[in-house]
Amino acid sequence: MEDPPYTDSVDLDRMQRRLDEIMSIGKTEEGGVTRLAYSEEESEAFEYVRSELDDSLEIRTDSLGNLYASPDLDSAETTLVGSHLDSVYNGGRLDGALGVVVAMEAMDVVETAETSSAVPPTLVVFRGEESARFGSHTIGSRGALGMLTVEDFSRADQNDVPLWLAMQRDGHQPSDLSEPMLDLSRVRRFYETHIEQGRVLDESDNDLGIVTSIRAPVRYNVTVEGAYDHSGATPMDLREDALAAAGEMITAVEQVASDTGAVVATVGDITARDGAINKVCGEVAFPLDIRSDEVPSRDEVERGILNEFSRITDRRDVTVSKEEIDRSDPVSLSKNAIDELTDAVSATGAEYLQLPSGGGHDAMNFQQAGIPTGMLFVPSVRGISHSPEEETYPESIRSAAIATAHVLANPDA
Amino acid sequence: MEDPPYTDSVDLDRMQRRLDEIMSIGKTEEGGVTRLAYSEEESEAFEYVRSELDDSLEIRTDSLGNLYASPDLDSAETTLVGSHLDSVYNGGRLDGALGVVVAMEAMDVVETAETSSAVPPTLVVFRGEESARFGSHTIGSRGALGMLTVEDFSRADQNDVPLWLAMQRDGHQPSDLSEPMLDLSRVRRFYETHIEQGRVLDESDNDLGIVTSIRAPVRYNVTVEGAYDHSGATPMDLREDALAAAGEMITAVEQVASDTGAVVATVGDITARDGAINKVCGEVAFPLDIRSDEVPSRDEVERGILNEFSRITDRRDVTVSKEEIDRSDPVSLSKNAIDELTDAVSATGAEYLQLPSGGGHDAMNFQQAGIPTGMLFVPSVRGISHSPEEETYPESIRSAAIATAHVLANPDA
Repeated sequence: MEDPPYTDSVDLDRMQRRLDEIMSIGKTEEGGVTRLAYSEEESEAFEYVRSELDDSLEIRTDSLGNLYASPDLDSAETTLVGSHLDSVYNGGRLDGALGVVVAMEAMDVVETAETSSAVPPTLVVFRGEESARFGSHTIGSRGALGMLTVEDFSRADQNDVPLWLAMQRDGHQPSDLSEPMLDLSRVRRFYETHIEQGRVLDESDNDLGIVTSIRAPVRYNVTVEGAYDHSGATPMDLREDALAAAGEMITAVEQVASDTGAVVATVGDITARDGAINKVCGEVAFPLDIRSDEVPSRDEVERGILNEFSRITDRRDVTVSKEEIDRSDPVSLSKNAIDELTDAVSATGAEYLQLPSGGGHDAMNFQQAGIPTGMLFVPSVRGISHSPEEETYPESIRSAAIATAHVLANPDA
Repeated sequence: MEDPPYTDSVDLDRMQRRLDEIMSIGKTEEGGVTRLAYSEEESEAFEYVRSELDDSLEIRTDSLGNLYASPDLDSAETTLVGSHLDSVYNGGRLDGALGVVVAMEAMDVVETAETSSAVPPTLVVFRGEESARFGSHTIGSRGALGMLTVEDFSRADQNDVPLWLAMQRDGHQPSDLSEPMLDLSRVRRFYETHIEQGRVLDESDNDLGIVTSIRAPVRYNVTVEGAYDHSGATPMDLREDALAAAGEMITAVEQVASDTGAVVATVGDITARDGAINKVCGEVAFPLDIRSDEVPSRDEVERGILNEFSRITDRRDVTVSKEEIDRSDPVSLSKNAIDELTDAVSATGAEYLQLPSGGGHDAMNFQQAGIPTGMLFVPSVRGISHSPEEETYPESIRSAAIATAHVLANPDA
């Protein structure tokens, strides 16, 4: 069989070099990367990407700091392709960065091909996809689409810096939140490549995944209040121990989700306020994240967890307060975009699987805004994600770039 | 009945003023106080106490920063009286400070009485009684008695500052750890007043308590290791969730201790390393504190808890490591000192109770060093301790000062 188009043009070494260079920005002692939303490290990564762009491209930055680059930024029609550059605390080298590097490569390949595309593609690089810093996800892409709210801008990081202030400090000052910063009538597709962040592709030995739908989270900030007491002098039966109550709640979150299929529920962090070895802890806070691609199952798990919380606090003489910080609906991606990507991946000879995404992505917002959207997944080796050990396979990266170049070059396929 | 001696000389207003002035050093927004071991705030409180001492007193500071003040620091015999000035994070105004203020008052009353004591008393103010900063308790008094170890000096605070460095930064540089900084042959008694930190006196409507024994802790630093994973894309049954495991362990600690009388067990703090709303947490650390005045019961609870930890980690595919950081034995206080304090308290007309102490105190170390030691407790209103709401009753403070003056003035009673 003949090699598909662009196989020779895709430069795997260049992509690996770019991934390494982005990785060096915010690298941690543990070998991971911390490049939070609207941090200096994220801005430096944006500068790096700019410096790698071909001189022939027009470049624009919107008022949230998202980057756009295209042979013609004002063409009648365009295909968007890209991802994000921020990371979680001590995350991996591929999450976000891979999608940007694959998009840059595909753009370059299409641009230098003999027959250029009838629709000029636009590279998009989004700010703040991860919720690690502000508890708010996909800030840049939602902002670009006019989906951010005043509440999002008021959310603060662990140093009590609100999002709006972090943006200002980085030189961005958005004015009209509800107005898309993109002319959506120009955009015919959005394509994103991302690492799977689960174990499905690796355990089934597939090279690539084509995403069919995106699980969406319900999220709460939970605070448990009891009473501070001396650890040595307070009998067990007189305690109002917020941390013991939180321990029981965390166990309940896991149990309720495990009892229901197709749902995951997670407590991934915890803070014991004024905690000490010799005090009964009087106040504990933790975030709760519940996801599914089936709303009824997710609702069932959410109800089950909140019922358990009530049962635990009633019995213990502590109180619980729950602030809902996110309630997104699962998203089915465009049938057309799925078919286009499936044809393009087939042509590369890669083994592939269609699957739902466990995590939320910038792509989700574009589909919700009415733009037909498609996503490719490369496998997560051993399913490891948001970790210094995050890794994938070189051939998967190469195949993703070839398939992406194919869909950019053939807008009427 | 005639008032007991010193009733008119004890100045409750002066004691309240001194408590307020010490309280102002390290006061928190929540109305509590944070004056950690070897912090600037602790040093400032020591300066304050020095400034309040009568000019007639000789003053000495040992190489750990403990303060001694006496009409004759080199007398053949002396009675020590005092407590500490450090606090936990956001603690109360009385813990430690009350014992210092009562001792100052009793010293002053005895000194200005018509017949001075045959044995000059010595005020002692200790550094670092609380384990909140370094996880090591009664640093100053153990140092004064030659009981500190190299391990104690190496323990670090949450900013990785070890105890020895914190001491050096504050101008203290102890050399020979195993040599007492006190000539113990001179010391005939040690007396300390402290707030109860439990609910026994307040619930039984007693004005004062006379301590019979001191519960002692076994302490561990516990670390649970699992695997970091994406919260949305990792099925429940494939997780190695360190925080869910820790939640179950904390619940088990409470359960095992509740099932056994005369023992308390506490997890008062927790850290989720690199925790985030959208990650399964791979590493969690928490301290464990188990106390009783009966060693066999304490051992039984310790075994029960560690067995539960093993059972939980075996089932969950996570690992647990336990570093033992303290194993102290309960201490029975001196029969003679208990009798002397009981007679002195009786003479004040206060209602009193003999009871064990739930918390460790500087007094414990003096008894262990062979010095006959006695302790008075004032009630904790509603049992609240290590909290901004810590409080006691003015008449209890007055009675404690009168009784203390009595035992200082009558060394041969």
